[in-house]
Amino acid sequence: MLPQEVEELIREMSEERIRGASYLAQMGAKAYARLAEILEGEEFLNGLKDLGVEILNVNPTMASLYNLVRFIPIIDNPEFVAAKANEFIRLSEEAKREIGNIGSELIDQNEIIITHSYSSTVLEILKKAKEKGKAFKVIISESGPDYEGLFFAKKLEEFEIPFEVITDAQLGLFAKNATLALVGADNITKDGYVFNKAGTYLLALACNDNGIPFYVAAETFKIHPEARAEDIKIIERKFKRDHIIIRNYLFDATPWKYIRGIITELGILVPPKEI
Amino acid sequence: MLPQEVEELIREMSEERIRGASYLAQMGAKAYARLAEILEGEEFLNGLKDLGVEILNVNPTMASLYNLVRFIPIIDNPEFVAAKANEFIRLSEEAKREIGNIGSELIDQNEIIITHSYSSTVLEILKKAKEKGKAFKVIISESGPDYEGLFFAKKLEEFEIPFEVITDAQLGLFAKNATLALVGADNITKDGYVFNKAGTYLLALACNDNGIPFYVAAETFKIHPEARAEDIKIIERKFKRDHIIIRNYLFDATPWKYIRGIITELGILVPPKEI
Repeated sequence: MLPQEVEELIREMSEERIRGASYLAQMGAKAYARLAEILEGEEFLNGLKDLGVEILNVNPTMASLYNLVRFIPIIDNPEFVAAKANEFIRLSEEAKREIGNIGSELIDQNEIIITHSYSSTVLEILKKAKEKGKAFKVIISESGPDYEGLFFAKKLEEFEIPFEVITDAQLGLFAKNATLALVGADNITKDGYVFNKAGTYLLALACNDNGIPFYVAAETFKIHPEARAEDIKIIERKFKRDHIIIRNYLFDATPWKYIRGIITELGILVPPKEI
Repeated sequence: MLPQEVEELIREMSEERIRGASYLAQMGAKAYARLAEILEGEEFLNGLKDLGVEILNVNPTMASLYNLVRFIPIIDNPEFVAAKANEFIRLSEEAKREIGNIGSELIDQNEIIITHSYSSTVLEILKKAKEKGKAFKVIISESGPDYEGLFFAKKLEEFEIPFEVITDAQLGLFAKNATLALVGADNITKDGYVFNKAGTYLLALACNDNGIPFYVAAETFKIHPEARAEDIKIIERKFKRDHIIIRNYLFDATPWKYIRGIITELGILVPPKEI
């Protein structure tokens, strides 16, 4: 049994509908830090194990959660665990800032950037590009049924970055007029598949068909150290419209051959030539 | 000025949000037939011209409306015009039945058919395949923001054809597991582009990427005799979610290279080899 306060954090993570793999990993790290404040001894050690399982269950598609759980040692030393949890948060914030620095260099004057759903990492790049004085426009898909795209649009309003919102079905139509595509990621597998919000694969295909460079922005903790695409479980949240059940897998997989590069805090990863 | 009753038919056509190019062409033909009952002489001749313009304005993307207007002669003979209007309706019903006969032959036992939005022509094929005793399943996209896919799903419920509804963003995910794609059309241009509900192009790309045969079902009156893709005006119906304007072009264009064949009442058209 985890302390109620920690369970509450896990519940919040499970109910999050807008923010993705970066945010949830940070929340998971906060749950570890909190656990280290509350428990000690045998109870702490058992709590650590349980918390790892619960964090993975929040969203088994996300490599960020897998890597967080891997990052935290299971040892009977709450201070050290808390320090590691806080280190994870600090590293992930630094990574995001650095991705903003690197990614914003890809944005040219008057770029038309198309994106799908909401990514805090993509937002960071756009903010940095704006700070650097670049003028550009963003095309955002709504991303039904939870409309993360509208959340993204409101963030861009805040930063006075011009945007247009489109329905998901128009990703192909609008990709034709874009000059750059930029999306986030929830998991990047060993065999080079990018798992991101369902619809990303469609955008990648449309960009490929129209010669639009398609980039992924992701902290390296979203790279899965072991899994291949077929090992990834894609979680589904079915819902109803009228009386009809709507299938709703949250993520899809884009193969590396459609990706120009993955912008990480260490630099831009490009596919090996033979792909 | 058109008679109020005819204006009313045009208004209904303009407000139709679910049914497509076949249905609207038939309604247009009914408007011609009704005009021929109400007016005569000079008034009838002027009414004919005005009605043609108004029908084209209902949806300039639809070749079916263009071909209807082309099919109706502008002559001072209400009986003849009414006969032509009724001939159009009869031919279009025969065409749909024949497409059902031909198209249903493409459906094998245990086929998984993916489609986008609602098409009465695709529905006809599925009904015929069911009548022929074939067992198959249909995957339908919702097709936001008007959810024609749900309308389609309810039709399939009626005919006891098994189906699953997905969000538009999952077209790529589910195309992988389909064995056949089947969509309708609103306009097929001289240079081989199929204009259909926005999102169709994305489905075609996903089918191409996964080796799934992609067929279009369309009466020949949806083939535009003159226009090329760049001549087609795609109508847009913007809407708001929260305070944010959402762009909403209704159609996109799929090039012929991604289409295995177009099922018409005359047989299946296939792309010339060099495409």
